[in-house]
Amino acid sequence: MPKKIRLGILGGGGDSLIGVLHRVAAFINDNYEIVGAVFSPEYDESLAFAKQIDLPIDRIYKDFDTLIEEELKLPEDERMEVCSVQTPNFLHYPMAKKLLDNGFHVICEKPMTMTYEEAKSLQASHKASGKVFALTHTYTGYPMVRQMRQMIKEGELGKIHKVDARYYQGWINPIIHDKEKRSSVWRLDPTKAGISSCMGDIGVHAFNMLEFTTGLKVKSLLCDFNYMYDDNVMDVDGTVLVRMDEHVKGVIRASQVATGEENGLAIRIYGEKGGFVWEQEDPNFLYFFSEGKPLQVYKPGHPYNSKISLEGTKLPPGHPEGIFDSMANIYLGAAKAIRGEAYDDCEFPTMEDGVRGMNFIEGTVHSHKQGNVWIDLD
Amino acid sequence: MPKKIRLGILGGGGDSLIGVLHRVAAFINDNYEIVGAVFSPEYDESLAFAKQIDLPIDRIYKDFDTLIEEELKLPEDERMEVCSVQTPNFLHYPMAKKLLDNGFHVICEKPMTMTYEEAKSLQASHKASGKVFALTHTYTGYPMVRQMRQMIKEGELGKIHKVDARYYQGWINPIIHDKEKRSSVWRLDPTKAGISSCMGDIGVHAFNMLEFTTGLKVKSLLCDFNYMYDDNVMDVDGTVLVRMDEHVKGVIRASQVATGEENGLAIRIYGEKGGFVWEQEDPNFLYFFSEGKPLQVYKPGHPYNSKISLEGTKLPPGHPEGIFDSMANIYLGAAKAIRGEAYDDCEFPTMEDGVRGMNFIEGTVHSHKQGNVWIDLD
Amino acid sequence: MPKKIRLGILGGGGDSLIGVLHRVAAFINDNYEIVGAVFSPEYDESLAFAKQIDLPIDRIYKDFDTLIEEELKLPEDERMEVCSVQTPNFLHYPMAKKLLDNGFHVICEKPMTMTYEEAKSLQASHKASGKVFALTHTYTGYPMVRQMRQMIKEGELGKIHKVDARYYQGWINPIIHDKEKRSSVWRLDPTKAGISSCMGDIGVHAFNMLEFTTGLKVKSLLCDFNYMYDDNVMDVDGTVLVRMDEHVKGVIRASQVATGEENGLAIRIYGEKGGFVWEQEDPNFLYFFSEGKPLQVYKPGHPYNSKISLEGTKLPPGHPEGIFDSMANIYLGAAKAIRGEAYDDCEFPTMEDGVRGMNFIEGTVHSHKQGNVWIDLD
Amino acid sequence: MPKKIRLGILGGGGDSLIGVLHRVAAFINDNYEIVGAVFSPEYDESLAFAKQIDLPIDRIYKDFDTLIEEELKLPEDERMEVCSVQTPNFLHYPMAKKLLDNGFHVICEKPMTMTYEEAKSLQASHKASGKVFALTHTYTGYPMVRQMRQMIKEGELGKIHKVDARYYQGWINPIIHDKEKRSSVWRLDPTKAGISSCMGDIGVHAFNMLEFTTGLKVKSLLCDFNYMYDDNVMDVDGTVLVRMDEHVKGVIRASQVATGEENGLAIRIYGEKGGFVWEQEDPNFLYFFSEGKPLQVYKPGHPYNSKISLEGTKLPPGHPEGIFDSMANIYLGAAKAIRGEAYDDCEFPTMEDGVRGMNFIEGTVHSHKQGNVWIDLD
Repeated sequence: MPKKIRLGILGGGGDSLIGVLHRVAAFINDNYEIVGAVFSPEYDESLAFAKQIDLPIDRIYKDFDTLIEEELKLPEDERMEVCSVQTPNFLHYPMAKKLLDNGFHVICEKPMTMTYEEAKSLQASHKASGKVFALTHTYTGYPMVRQMRQMIKEGELGKIHKVDARYYQGWINPIIHDKEKRSSVWRLDPTKAGISSCMGDIGVHAFNMLEFTTGLKVKSLLCDFNYMYDDNVMDVDGTVLVRMDEHVKGVIRASQVATGEENGLAIRIYGEKGGFVWEQEDPNFLYFFSEGKPLQVYKPGHPYNSKISLEGTKLPPGHPEGIFDSMANIYLGAAKAIRGEAYDDCEFPTMEDGVRGMNFIEGTVHSHKQGNVWIDLD
Repeated sequence: MPKKIRLGILGGGGDSLIGVLHRVAAFINDNYEIVGAVFSPEYDESLAFAKQIDLPIDRIYKDFDTLIEEELKLPEDERMEVCSVQTPNFLHYPMAKKLLDNGFHVICEKPMTMTYEEAKSLQASHKASGKVFALTHTYTGYPMVRQMRQMIKEGELGKIHKVDARYYQGWINPIIHDKEKRSSVWRLDPTKAGISSCMGDIGVHAFNMLEFTTGLKVKSLLCDFNYMYDDNVMDVDGTVLVRMDEHVKGVIRASQVATGEENGLAIRIYGEKGGFVWEQEDPNFLYFFSEGKPLQVYKPGHPYNSKISLEGTKLPPGHPEGIFDSMANIYLGAAKAIRGEAYDDCEFPTMEDGVRGMNFIEGTVHSHKQGNVWIDLD
Repeated sequence: MPKKIRLGILGGGGDSLIGVLHRVAAFINDNYEIVGAVFSPEYDESLAFAKQIDLPIDRIYKDFDTLIEEELKLPEDERMEVCSVQTPNFLHYPMAKKLLDNGFHVICEKPMTMTYEEAKSLQASHKASGKVFALTHTYTGYPMVRQMRQMIKEGELGKIHKVDARYYQGWINPIIHDKEKRSSVWRLDPTKAGISSCMGDIGVHAFNMLEFTTGLKVKSLLCDFNYMYDDNVMDVDGTVLVRMDEHVKGVIRASQVATGEENGLAIRIYGEKGGFVWEQEDPNFLYFFSEGKPLQVYKPGHPYNSKISLEGTKLPPGHPEGIFDSMANIYLGAAKAIRGEAYDDCEFPTMEDGVRGMNFIEGTVHSHKQGNVWIDLD
Repeated sequence: MPKKIRLGILGGGGDSLIGVLHRVAAFINDNYEIVGAVFSPEYDESLAFAKQIDLPIDRIYKDFDTLIEEELKLPEDERMEVCSVQTPNFLHYPMAKKLLDNGFHVICEKPMTMTYEEAKSLQASHKASGKVFALTHTYTGYPMVRQMRQMIKEGELGKIHKVDARYYQGWINPIIHDKEKRSSVWRLDPTKAGISSCMGDIGVHAFNMLEFTTGLKVKSLLCDFNYMYDDNVMDVDGTVLVRMDEHVKGVIRASQVATGEENGLAIRIYGEKGGFVWEQEDPNFLYFFSEGKPLQVYKPGHPYNSKISLEGTKLPPGHPEGIFDSMANIYLGAAKAIRGEAYDDCEFPTMEDGVRGMNFIEGTVHSHKQGNVWIDLD
């Protein structure tokens, strides 16, 4: 039975929700132990947080560069093996790059980078390093998402011809209509949040899910954003026409002004033999249409599911498992990779997903800015 | 208490589903009596059908022109007051026009005409006639659709900023992949079905619903069709970006290859203060988001509903009322208009809806054919 | 093609909801024409209502006895063939009995009679008459209820072992807590409403549905009522343990104080090989569990459904059909029987259903009153 | 900021699902550290499992008695503070009792004991000890269950008058019909599983939920079991009539032969002003009826929720949180109690819940065995 993986944490201290999610996910399958961290840019806060969660403080470093420097001094079988990057968006790229360049595996929050250019640069570092890079597109960890992917792969839908993904939230609605607020929130400031708000934050999840589940690549897109107010320069809503090829078309819809919506990610995929519908807010129900037959509802934990779906289910059918589990499944996949064990390529999102995501985000911005023209993806 | 309205029927004989729907709808609120008809192009069949449904045969005419001629000979208080046009699509325009030109009210199935040009011509006849013209966009008759419209009108959503309509069916999937079938079915033959298959048949309902519920007009659109095969010239799937104005945007999605979908019409509308979600296959549930409050579910027949919604509900809450009722509500509205009584302008779709519908359908075709460019609507 | 059936109506005039429902249902499948009626105990009102719905008034009679007398004078091929009894509960028995005794077919609202004794007496008249007697347990007309029954009959659930029916309404809640109101409403007055309020009005539907769908008979029951207040003598809530045999058990739950519930009739049936769940407020969705397989969702109108289910569906899949259709399906079944055509024994509820219903209602009262003991049904 | 609580584990090693659930739950809110354990009756397996999950092995004891003995030798600030009992049912009582008698806090899986007599004895030890005893009725940890309880407490339903709980599973269906299997499975052997199978395992959860949410106590019950086969002596299905007082009645339904059901726990509670519906398989949706108003759907994480509900929610609205979180919430409550901090009495189920549960289970057996008579609870 394997030793636990030595994990370092960057960011995620204090009240960070993403920090909780990552620590729990790392814990759930008994694969990781946290050995060191920089939880916060303030050393004091980092130390305090370590004490709060009962970690030894000898490897709580004053900053990221020190962490790299000191860890490299340790013998290889004590050294951090993998670092989880949970810092603000603009730090993802420099940290992930330096980690890979110095021989660490990386688990990285999304968006992977701020620009497509950075993404390609990080991809180069990744290739050169030979290390594992896992991008936490959390939703791909849901057992029924993995089941959907597996069934498509096995031909249950036949040739795919139509895809449709929605990611509707309403959280920015109370902000966008208030001039004061919309000019001060960091999410609408391109220097802090990157090139896109709505498409960069959530549209890219919808994009990733379409590619993840179908195994197809988006070849071109055409996008229309809504900024809502003339003095706002960041998209808070957008619709993207996509073409996977000439006869496989679809749409990605994302919004932060869909008032009342919470985390409304939903996927519809249709092919010659059938179709799938899945919604993130009810993640244990996978709706499977099969031409001419009654709708079937797949649920986690049943023997009729695929191996990879079952592996991500810890409880008997009927016990809802939440997003913690989904994240934990990704950590589990990464753990297998880190240990050099066999793993299915759906088990964690990779560098390539990150690169494609940045390609997508920039594509939407270009399409919109150039008057809603078609943009080809690489 | 009013006399029943003298109704004539064109088409709708034999096994016609639309015929049943119209007759039942005309019956439900005790407002119409059928006095004459041309049920079929074959006189024999027309007579036989009249006997089958126990109608007197003295006003079953051998063809449409004879019907007009003979009815005009009758004294005004015996003459057909209104004709319901349920014939194949290409006959809607000539019949409706001749009826209006000869002083008859008209209830007309959709699509109103084959082209936008015909639509404008019919509009001119309508204006000159002073008669009622009701277009059976059936879905506007649902009590909860009317409730949604009324609440938007009263400002419950505040300023609208996002609209999204879906109409997904899968019925053409078994046809489209078979070369033999797809080249012979009339729905994919432009000379019989008009300029568009998917957008003309169902996309236009989604379009109509967005305008009906919001009270806003689509100003421009950009469309992408999927023909699925190079030898097919009719759209079987399409996505339309719409702009109601610069800051009110949305999307209309329609498909006949969404395998497994039945009659999946769904509407999402979001505004500054709240949002609505409604789905045709569960028409008695209207989901109302209100910023910061729990989701509310409106159902028909409760005193909290608006007058116009309640008038369209005949049974106590909890008794599902179906599409027959929805159609009946439209007939009821038309009956009020025919009798010169007061009615709410949501009670039946009008000529203007028909004109806009044709404008929309042709716009989608133009947008797609010109390489997915924006088309302004009149 | 058959002549329409000559139908008489008793009750159902004015604003009567049940009247609308019956007339529409009679109309929907083109099988009936209304030839005469006593719509109201007041002759004037009866005549006025006939005019309102555009019926000839020559066979609108001043009272029920006159109707019988005058109709019997008519030649057989003009005489009313069937009468639909929609009067207050206490008139069902005497009217239905006299109709049967005089050679008329009968369509009768429920409850069939006021007592089990009356029910058995009516049953005797029915047997002697050789006429059709249809009891409008409306919910058995739903296509998916018929589908459920057919699949159980064909062994899809294997041996049944568990049944569960719920019928929850909340309408009496605003009345029951108000002493004034609860002592004056006729539904809580045993001289007007019969032996039971909740169980007699709605529990009996749940009971009927269990027997209808499973084909099994309830052999004994044990019941507990809730009167809510000491000064109230009619049940407004009750739970009934039922045994179909020693190893097939279940429960019927009915309430009029389930605050907020509308018309919450729901059925759950489980057997060795699978289970069914169906809810009246979403009548087009039939949930079918099959041991070890994903849940399947049956919907009306698909070729995978049984013949009898399909015959009750007039529109393509995805168009919700409401209770009007359900009632119309029952009229259709009765029409077949009246015409002497072949029909499936699920097509309309019969005398036997009425007798069993009264047996059930009285059984619940006895069980409760005797201290929640088991009562055997005949 | 507080030190982590020193936790010992009894049972839960190897592939135990309940073991995973408890460890994750203990981890989630950063309140516990595992300091020692007896994971298995086999010392070797216990040690191996400790290594597998990367625990130090110095406090992995060879058996329970040794654990007590050795821990008591440690200084108080190193000693285990609390033990989590996850062993087979018949060990719950002796272990919990000895732990309490020796001054340890206890977290205990359900059923708390094998008999009501044991339960009362344990209650006495608990009182004498002054220690915390938390019973893991997991479902009470769901944020929306806590919200429901809070709203009832604040009078949102007015006076409660009707309760209804269902817990339907189908897992024993493939076993019960096979003579070989049903005579050998431990769950149907009273010497191993206790006095009741279905009611003891799941019915008691339904019972607990009714008392937890309403704040009322069940005063008497009447029960009917189904054994399905004459050679089986353990209930696999049962219905329980309950009375909270003369005018507050309800029903608890539990089944292990509801074929196809997974973990179908559902609660319906109705009062003078409104009602609640909640289902465990969709735990983030709480349906709130309010007399005369549209149904409202409460979801976790919104400011409109109560403090105690919000404290149990770690992620923004729309992120489903699963049963791990629910369990974690209970651990969190227990942690507060152990540390002597203030906590709400809904935060973890207590000794009293355990005692009442055993009282309930034995009551159902007595009622059934004595011919379905009413049994009063203490």
